[in-house]
Amino acid sequence: MVQIPNTPAPTKPPAPRPVPTSADVARLAGVSRATVSYVLNNTSAVRISEPTRRRVHEAARELGYVPHAAARSLRAGHSRVVLMPTLPVPAGPLYSQFVHDFQGALSRLDYTVVQYGTSGLRGDDAARAWAELRPVAVLVPTPGIGPEGVAVLKRSGARAVVTLSPVPVEGAHALLLDHARVGQSAAEHLHARGRRRIGVVVPEEPGMEIFSGPRLTGAREALRGTDATVVELRLAYTQKSAAALAARWADLGLDAVFAYNDEYAMLLMRALTDAGVRIPEDTAVIGADDLMLGRLLRPTLSTVRIALPSGSELAALVDRAVRNPGAEPESHPLSGATVVHRESS
Amino acid sequence: MVQIPNTPAPTKPPAPRPVPTSADVARLAGVSRATVSYVLNNTSAVRISEPTRRRVHEAARELGYVPHAAARSLRAGHSRVVLMPTLPVPAGPLYSQFVHDFQGALSRLDYTVVQYGTSGLRGDDAARAWAELRPVAVLVPTPGIGPEGVAVLKRSGARAVVTLSPVPVEGAHALLLDHARVGQSAAEHLHARGRRRIGVVVPEEPGMEIFSGPRLTGAREALRGTDATVVELRLAYTQKSAAALAARWADLGLDAVFAYNDEYAMLLMRALTDAGVRIPEDTAVIGADDLMLGRLLRPTLSTVRIALPSGSELAALVDRAVRNPGAEPESHPLSGATVVHRESS
Repeated sequence: MVQIPNTPAPTKPPAPRPVPTSADVARLAGVSRATVSYVLNNTSAVRISEPTRRRVHEAARELGYVPHAAARSLRAGHSRVVLMPTLPVPAGPLYSQFVHDFQGALSRLDYTVVQYGTSGLRGDDAARAWAELRPVAVLVPTPGIGPEGVAVLKRSGARAVVTLSPVPVEGAHALLLDHARVGQSAAEHLHARGRRRIGVVVPEEPGMEIFSGPRLTGAREALRGTDATVVELRLAYTQKSAAALAARWADLGLDAVFAYNDEYAMLLMRALTDAGVRIPEDTAVIGADDLMLGRLLRPTLSTVRIALPSGSELAALVDRAVRNPGAEPESHPLSGATVVHRESS
Repeated sequence: MVQIPNTPAPTKPPAPRPVPTSADVARLAGVSRATVSYVLNNTSAVRISEPTRRRVHEAARELGYVPHAAARSLRAGHSRVVLMPTLPVPAGPLYSQFVHDFQGALSRLDYTVVQYGTSGLRGDDAARAWAELRPVAVLVPTPGIGPEGVAVLKRSGARAVVTLSPVPVEGAHALLLDHARVGQSAAEHLHARGRRRIGVVVPEEPGMEIFSGPRLTGAREALRGTDATVVELRLAYTQKSAAALAARWADLGLDAVFAYNDEYAMLLMRALTDAGVRIPEDTAVIGADDLMLGRLLRPTLSTVRIALPSGSELAALVDRAVRNPGAEPESHPLSGATVVHRESS
């Protein structure tokens, strides 16, 4: 870890220079504040001569004035901020790419995407914290928010709330991302391949249970009433934890494992191989996310491909919802849990 | 890709309900706006009776009123927002973990971390866009901002600007993260292992050149004046691109490759192995980032470990800088480029 030493506090902190305002620009340019606002916001409704425009720009530059987004949104009564609460866990590559594309697409539509961490707050309490930023739209990437949270956001000026969740929430547009379906697809695949004692990895890292819980439940439901059993396997994302699990493998007597996702699958596959377990002969392995990683492993890794919406499609949905705040909430099932069968199962 | 169909525009968009203000709360509770503000901001300086407090909270709940962060920061003259511009490329696992920790640590210090994408803007133009959000501090994760950008941010009320960059920028605190040093360490290691024709992977994905350029330069500088040569290798993060590069391998006559990072190294190692190139006998491979991935591969992957500051140390630096805006900018070299020698080199 890099050590950053403490700095002693300065004995006499200098008074901070006042932040220049549009009034200062108006004074220096010899125009009204309204003219400053028209020029700097590029308002086309008002005709302003080129020399005046130039004077305002020069004064703004000289003073180092930049408009205040918050003041502007207070005047306008709404912002162009699309709020995206951050995940409670570090983002994986699939989600990072999705956020990157979504952000780019919304920027091109002249929105500002703000990712906002509200650690410790959950559900409708988190929604109240988000509302303080007065976003024009909110994309909620995890379950937890309820109808009251949606109502708080809407009463605070949000024209659209979009949830990525297994069930729709009243008042919000819903992208129905069904993690139970992911577990179900994996379990059905392993069962169809003749496997009967199926482990399901549940990561020990905090915050993951919102994804891993429904995946485990989905696997259980898929095999209910069959001759197969499901065994829950706790695993931390460390080589030590994987080696400890692999050491118990013979006792567990599993002939297959759904390893939560491709990264945990790679970790577990390595530990199993090192412990002498043959994949897929002794134990079939399937991950999820369809990362490039899985195609590079040997044996190549079977996986459940999860289709997130494309960034630009989702941006278009948000924009449409902002323009038509009175429209009925849309509900789109993400039909995205497809097994990609490769060598490991 | 999931298809999201277009919704027809509603024929009569209903008028949006007005957003409740603190004045509405004051009216309903029968108190002054100042009292509403004291109660909802938990001001301890003013004594307010318990029944009045309760009345204000009930009125706020009934109206669905939440305070407006922007209005509050306008009144206070500053915000608690720490701005973190998003990277121009999707974040890798190392950086995702760093951002996650930094965000958590600043939340515990009562700051709000906002990640903000300004696609298309660069350098000081980007700084002007950031200034519009009136952050109290800015952490700039990529090179590009200059002294003017720092000055714009400070004049707009930012008390601290921290750059993560190879060289300090006037007026800003500097964490000196030297990507040239990463390339230099990798090249020196390969040279010390007896390798003389050394490929350096430069990703073709746009936006990566701010990292890959200095890494290539560092490798070139490390080997200047020696009997070794450096060959620049363009590679996209696809199996097709890697296979095409591997097919040219015999012609290139390389005995070593610095593969930019561990993910590109894994991609290239797989393609080289499939093409019959033995690692490390024919070609030594080294990556960077020290991901778990590299320890799971066989042969295990040599890497350059890059030490980012810990999230909590960096949060403490930001907090200290905000409290002492007049202090001299600090400069901390991140001594973080250590070769981890494993089987692949």
